[in-house]
Amino acid sequence: MKARAEDRSRVRKARKGTPAAPAKHRHARAHAGTPAIILFEPQLGENIGFAARAMANFGLSELRLVAPRDGWPNDKARAAAAGADAVIDGAKLYPSLEAAIADLNFLLAATARPRDMVKPVLTPKRAAAELAKRRGQGDRSGVLFGPERSGLDNDVVALADAIITAPVDPAFASLSLPQAVLLIAYEWLQADRPHPSLGRVTAHDGPAIEGLDLARTRPATRAELMGLFAHLERELDQAGFLRPPEKRPTMIRAIRNMFHRMGATEQDVRTWRGIVAALSHRTKRPRG
Amino acid sequence: MKARAEDRSRVRKARKGTPAAPAKHRHARAHAGTPAIILFEPQLGENIGFAARAMANFGLSELRLVAPRDGWPNDKARAAAAGADAVIDGAKLYPSLEAAIADLNFLLAATARPRDMVKPVLTPKRAAAELAKRRGQGDRSGVLFGPERSGLDNDVVALADAIITAPVDPAFASLSLPQAVLLIAYEWLQADRPHPSLGRVTAHDGPAIEGLDLARTRPATRAELMGLFAHLERELDQAGFLRPPEKRPTMIRAIRNMFHRMGATEQDVRTWRGIVAALSHRTKRPRG
Repeated sequence: MKARAEDRSRVRKARKGTPAAPAKHRHARAHAGTPAIILFEPQLGENIGFAARAMANFGLSELRLVAPRDGWPNDKARAAAAGADAVIDGAKLYPSLEAAIADLNFLLAATARPRDMVKPVLTPKRAAAELAKRRGQGDRSGVLFGPERSGLDNDVVALADAIITAPVDPAFASLSLPQAVLLIAYEWLQADRPHPSLGRVTAHDGPAIEGLDLARTRPATRAELMGLFAHLERELDQAGFLRPPEKRPTMIRAIRNMFHRMGATEQDVRTWRGIVAALSHRTKRPRG
Repeated sequence: MKARAEDRSRVRKARKGTPAAPAKHRHARAHAGTPAIILFEPQLGENIGFAARAMANFGLSELRLVAPRDGWPNDKARAAAAGADAVIDGAKLYPSLEAAIADLNFLLAATARPRDMVKPVLTPKRAAAELAKRRGQGDRSGVLFGPERSGLDNDVVALADAIITAPVDPAFASLSLPQAVLLIAYEWLQADRPHPSLGRVTAHDGPAIEGLDLARTRPATRAELMGLFAHLERELDQAGFLRPPEKRPTMIRAIRNMFHRMGATEQDVRTWRGIVAALSHRTKRPRG
């Protein structure tokens, strides 16, 4: 358990090894491993800025942007951030959603819409508690938000482990993008820095935590899962399983969601790669 | 106490006796006596609109404006409200703060700044609980917010029963006006409606509830799961995957555990039966 935590810590440090100015990143340690906020195709620069300000208000620092409509950097975003320059300056631009989430092993999708898919639904408070727990385990988490006008579509939601939906007045349920970011960030800070300390945690015996015991492995990264999905779906296409074509997207989403729901570990992904290879290549390498 | 509550009720009815269009005020009863949001000398119309939208999201409807810098009505406010027209149309303009709070018997001031005065400080959550309790007693409450640039000054704060301050990152503590309104409104809804609905509710799909949405399927029975396991393991044996023999029990347990962890549904089991059949029988019934 201890060795594993150290391994992760080392991996994380290596990943973050950009030559950052020390003064600018004074809070880097407090922020290390805090959830990334991922804005997928955001439309208005102002909303990116408002979101950045809300992040800074509540101790979040890692902003990832996928294809912002008005380009990046964006003067309106900086003005709206009202001083949260560290978040704006540190924002990373990604060419695709896949690239933006590749290193994460826990991903939540913020959407107000009930979807026809079997996926856990969390309130911001429950989501924040889960994010804090994952951070304690050394996982890398992210929360994904869709474009202002349309929100996240089903194919994107299918990439997430769970959905976050805020309790709202059903008569007027549509939250603005920065307001949605704010609620997650607000709950995050309270989950991450609880005032009362409960019992002592030493370097040797770690806290007893509720949830899955992943002591001997770690949650799969999104890149590992996508590799498995590509492999499985390629074989299923060749086997003629994903038919008729109009049903293919739904079938793929259902299969992907099952893996997200099981909370697939890195070991699980390797097992399934093996299963898919064994079943589909039986006749090429008959062993049974 | 009873007489007093009745008196208040009568006063409230008299006050609300405007000939309102019934359709527009369908939610009037649900909103009766909800806390008023009072914006003192707000500067930007957009922020008034964002605040109105946040109010509507969380079941607040009564907006009071004291000397808004850019006048009232304000087109930018309406645009930013993004459909929360009932709040904008119902907003009342007051010439002075004293007039705006005259009818209230419980007033909270939202401010991030520590003040040199002896006054209770409440978190948004504690404040919301207090507001809900007061509403139950028939009181009329309000929450007061200051101008964007300067916030509330000491003389204004002195008019309030207590201060609301959100827990923020001390390194970047300044909340925007609409974000501050949102946090109060968010906590209000949860205090006022112990089981608020999550997300959108339509006539067809009922309220979203926390947890897995299994509306259109049901968890698999153990018999269905065992049927799947037998099928999968038979094929994996034939493919030579479950080797060497001494590792077979461990591998099987790991695979079975994954299905249990995902909380497989009856539909999921059928999908996996199909996948196993498709992959393992490819060469017998080539379709791809």
